[in-house]
Amino acid sequence: MSGRLEAFRTEREKMNARILATGTMTTKRFFNLDTATYHDGALDALTKEFAGLSASMVLRCDDCIAYHVIRCYELGATEAQITEIFDVGLIVGGSIVIPHLRRARALLDELIEAAGPR
Amino acid sequence: MSGRLEAFRTEREKMNARILATGTMTTKRFFNLDTATYHDGALDALTKEFAGLSASMVLRCDDCIAYHVIRCYELGATEAQITEIFDVGLIVGGSIVIPHLRRARALLDELIEAAGPR
Amino acid sequence: MSGRLEAFRTEREKMNARILATGTMTTKRFFNLDTATYHDGALDALTKEFAGLSASMVLRCDDCIAYHVIRCYELGATEAQITEIFDVGLIVGGSIVIPHLRRARALLDELIEAAGPR
Amino acid sequence: MSGRLEAFRTEREKMNARILATGTMTTKRFFNLDTATYHDGALDALTKEFAGLSASMVLRCDDCIAYHVIRCYELGATEAQITEIFDVGLIVGGSIVIPHLRRARALLDELIEAAGPR
Amino acid sequence: MSGRLEAFRTEREKMNARILATGTMTTKRFFNLDTATYHDGALDALTKEFAGLSASMVLRCDDCIAYHVIRCYELGATEAQITEIFDVGLIVGGSIVIPHLRRARALLDELIEAAGPR
Amino acid sequence: MSGRLEAFRTEREKMNARILATGTMTTKRFFNLDTATYHDGALDALTKEFAGLSASMVLRCDDCIAYHVIRCYELGATEAQITEIFDVGLIVGGSIVIPHLRRARALLDELIEAAGPR
Repeated sequence: MSGRLEAFRTEREKMNARILATGTMTTKRFFNLDTATYHDGALDALTKEFAGLSASMVLRCDDCIAYHVIRCYELGATEAQITEIFDVGLIVGGSIVIPHLRRARALLDELIEAAGPR
Repeated sequence: MSGRLEAFRTEREKMNARILATGTMTTKRFFNLDTATYHDGALDALTKEFAGLSASMVLRCDDCIAYHVIRCYELGATEAQITEIFDVGLIVGGSIVIPHLRRARALLDELIEAAGPR
Repeated sequence: MSGRLEAFRTEREKMNARILATGTMTTKRFFNLDTATYHDGALDALTKEFAGLSASMVLRCDDCIAYHVIRCYELGATEAQITEIFDVGLIVGGSIVIPHLRRARALLDELIEAAGPR
Repeated sequence: MSGRLEAFRTEREKMNARILATGTMTTKRFFNLDTATYHDGALDALTKEFAGLSASMVLRCDDCIAYHVIRCYELGATEAQITEIFDVGLIVGGSIVIPHLRRARALLDELIEAAGPR
Repeated sequence: MSGRLEAFRTEREKMNARILATGTMTTKRFFNLDTATYHDGALDALTKEFAGLSASMVLRCDDCIAYHVIRCYELGATEAQITEIFDVGLIVGGSIVIPHLRRARALLDELIEAAGPR
Repeated sequence: MSGRLEAFRTEREKMNARILATGTMTTKRFFNLDTATYHDGALDALTKEFAGLSASMVLRCDDCIAYHVIRCYELGATEAQITEIFDVGLIVGGSIVIPHLRRARALLDELIEAAGPR
């Protein structure tokens, strides 16, 4: 795991813990729901992560994109598959998505370098 | 096919044809790209339609949601699978998605009634 | 209650019931959370409805705006107070909010006509 | 002027008048600013209307798109020029813009039919 | 006041001054309107800041969120009250808001540490 | 050219090249379309860059705003003209645009300092 990915995860976990420690019951329940949404069900977890990734791309949230790229990769998605979801995000969301695509591609490169291609 | 679905398709095809007849080379090429994005590739067409559906939900575009729900259903998605993509859109995009979910659910009901459940 | 308001409520309740009847546990839990968010707490319900109204305005969702205007009015907000939240939505969200403001104003007029001013 | 365009203008003017009659000083001042933004200045009015049109397209507001298409046409824009701004909106904003482009194209057709081509 | 909050304010004030020095009459007037919107009126300033905060959260603008959190805190909002507005933003806007919530929570922690809890 | 502008361009070109090297035919074609959209046509390139700038402002993408400000300046736009497009973005998009306007203004100042005013 590269330093940048590690830093992303550490900050993410630290502040999520802080939000849960200070949040209301509503806050906690929403975080639980968010996790449960991507579990295996009628669709497998990976298909739902792909759907979460395209949604994050068109809403243009770098941290959300990073999270779903990492999850897709952990669940066994190939580089070619993730690239095609990048296309869905790009075509649905337009050129405004490109700066986020640049950062998503850089992160995917880091993931592949750390773990080896598939 | 119910009257409402038929009306959606007729209007969509008529105005798409009009846009292509009056558009520039850029317009035409973008429409071609849009179609090509959802073809089978490293991911099958249905997985990409699911990704297009979740993206359309969080961007809250009724016509785009309708189009992708229809395509998912045509490609063999079950009601339970589409419902889980609705969840991804709802959790990523929040309560602001609910009015669009109401209309998407009504359209899915029409599709199922017209074609029978799976 | 005018015919238009009544139609909005009837359709909303019918399709919400349909979503809950067909939805997953995630769907149901999110709907419960959505309701709980606006209950009295450290802030009273009306202040949270005002916050929900401004959020709905800048996201430009007519149905959400309608719902929160109705709730604000039911909870005792004056016309002048709702108008100032309209200003927050307008200034934060810009001129793109104006078409939604036109529809929100028409709905508020209906509410006042039905119930009398305060 | 076709019936549909006339209906759009009548409703728009009626509710704008209602907003101004019931609004605060902030409301009124924002409406004045909105008008002043598109006056001739360092850039001519038409160039600013083009910029307003592309902004309205990527934010996907049908009424705002309609208003700026009408203004561009009134200020002398050709069909080919408006079509190129449609392209900017489409490429920046992506396929999610297409349903709005369908309605914008239909409105432009009405304008041209009513006034004759240029 | 911590170094990070101070840096935010210094940069904000410097560039706002620069925008006003180089802007048109429209620019200046909009900045004045923006300030006036949150003054006491039919609603007190704090209620309007809460509405501005929820709007900023769902539009996912870190600087705007930071500004309204600071203003809410200066006007006497408790941590529990701000947390409930965070919930409104989270439920209306969905999980895409979470990265911004992490940064908003970190900033609120800084404010409380600098000023003491209420 | 200042160090910051140079860094923006270097990173942009490096990652665009990486996206094209790893992308699908769809990715490559979209990038080509994106470039072609702003070429001289029925409208000159600068007018289309102005339209791209206002669209980028209301979608609040700093990198896209930076790119279009640079292109407008390269194509001969004056500071006063760019400032009026800033106004269009500000009025259409509202106060949520202001943080992006601060960064756009800082970048325009760098451009002018590097190249001299017009």
